Amino acid sequence: MTYCVALRLNEGLVFASDSRTNAGVDHVATFRKMHRFAQAGERQIVLLNSGNLATTQSVISMLRSRCQHDAPHLLNVPSLYDAAVQVGQILREVIARDSVGGSGVDYGAHFLVGGQIAGERARLFHVYPQGNFIEATEDTPYFQIGESKYGKPILDRVLDTATPLEDAVKCVLISFDSTIRSNLSVGLPIDLFTLHEGDLHPAAPRRIDERDVYFQSLRRAWGQGLRRVFARLPPAPTSGIGTERDEKPGH
Amino acid sequence: MTYCVALRLNEGLVFASDSRTNAGVDHVATFRKMHRFAQAGERQIVLLNSGNLATTQSVISMLRSRCQHDAPHLLNVPSLYDAAVQVGQILREVIARDSVGGSGVDYGAHFLVGGQIAGERARLFHVYPQGNFIEATEDTPYFQIGESKYGKPILDRVLDTATPLEDAVKCVLISFDSTIRSNLSVGLPIDLFTLHEGDLHPAAPRRIDERDVYFQSLRRAWGQGLRRVFARLPPAPTSGIGTERDEKPGH
Repeated sequence: MTYCVALRLNEGLVFASDSRTNAGVDHVATFRKMHRFAQAGERQIVLLNSGNLATTQSVISMLRSRCQHDAPHLLNVPSLYDAAVQVGQILREVIARDSVGGSGVDYGAHFLVGGQIAGERARLFHVYPQGNFIEATEDTPYFQIGESKYGKPILDRVLDTATPLEDAVKCVLISFDSTIRSNLSVGLPIDLFTLHEGDLHPAAPRRIDERDVYFQSLRRAWGQGLRRVFARLPPAPTSGIGTERDEKPGH
Repeated sequence: MTYCVALRLNEGLVFASDSRTNAGVDHVATFRKMHRFAQAGERQIVLLNSGNLATTQSVISMLRSRCQHDAPHLLNVPSLYDAAVQVGQILREVIARDSVGGSGVDYGAHFLVGGQIAGERARLFHVYPQGNFIEATEDTPYFQIGESKYGKPILDRVLDTATPLEDAVKCVLISFDSTIRSNLSVGLPIDLFTLHEGDLHPAAPRRIDERDVYFQSLRRAWGQGLRRVFARLPPAPTSGIGTERDEKPGH
């Protein structure tokens, strides 16, 4: 499985992905799920992927290989929208190619495609296995792919489009912590990339593993804080809560 | 969809279920998913269910109808184990009966079966659509069925077998709050039932709806507490976090 999140906020973009893949519990490996296509000063495009590893690797290989040729590619398309179109097209091609046998295997994959190209603002798209896609908006400033449910409540409680990038990074890392604790198929290291709106010379992506001091202190502080809040909640009246039901016991 | 949780702790059992069912987003209704078979002073058995509503209603009807006859039934079986066996058998029968057409519909359902019968300690089982089942233990003191992922992180962080029932009820209600916020197909009211180990004269199940004062105050205090803890977490260094990656930008 996989967990990836990307946010499009007023201040810029945040991307994060885990790096565990598995085909059954006895075939677990580490693969990067974050891929960057960048020309410093001109464009920063990041892809996150979930789903069939053969499919996602082929899509990335084909996208990279295109960049050597004259055709439109991620390093020369005029807008992020065109980048999403291209990812969708290639994703469709790869799935069509590999599905020929009809083995019942799920060849599907999802991509989050985000970034900024000089001349337009930062944008973020979610490309579906069918090759079509949606764009993040003010109302829905984030997308998740893969094992998304465990880590969704904290995003829903904390994030909106005005959240500062620093806070957004904290929130995303907590979302990963909750997911990693609840699902063995999502694992460290986390790849993390932050793009401030308009800054086309960003710092390189960072890799966060179990020795990362900041992530350790964040996990610890969050876990302790939650338990402290929990301990101070009003006690549950073990009787007297809610409205008594008039159900007849027995039959 | 559905969300149900049941816990088997040292102090006793907690059961909670939502009450929303849906067949598509335009066919939403309220159905109780908690059913009790009880003889005050002698046995308290509670069933929670998820899955196909026709299946679960039929299973409950057949279990109730059996109680009118001489055969073994939930009001006379000698142990909770036998209750789980009976639920599994009837579940299998109903699914086999309804699947005859082979329409591609999922007729499956899950049941949590827990309670206490005089002479043995409180027990809790998870009955699968196949009719077999597992029992909660000290290491795994809770089961969830239905839309379980959103509400799992808080259970994993707070609960163990020594958790007092009062705290367990708080934790379960927070787990419901997170699920209800993230998934429209899970909704109030919540049915809640608590059984103290050895007390075979428990208070009736309670129904918690949006006007419930305790639940409102709990949701508010939890949401505020989380945001307070979040605000005090160490700030994310937007640069300098993790180990810089040596990935080459571009192709």
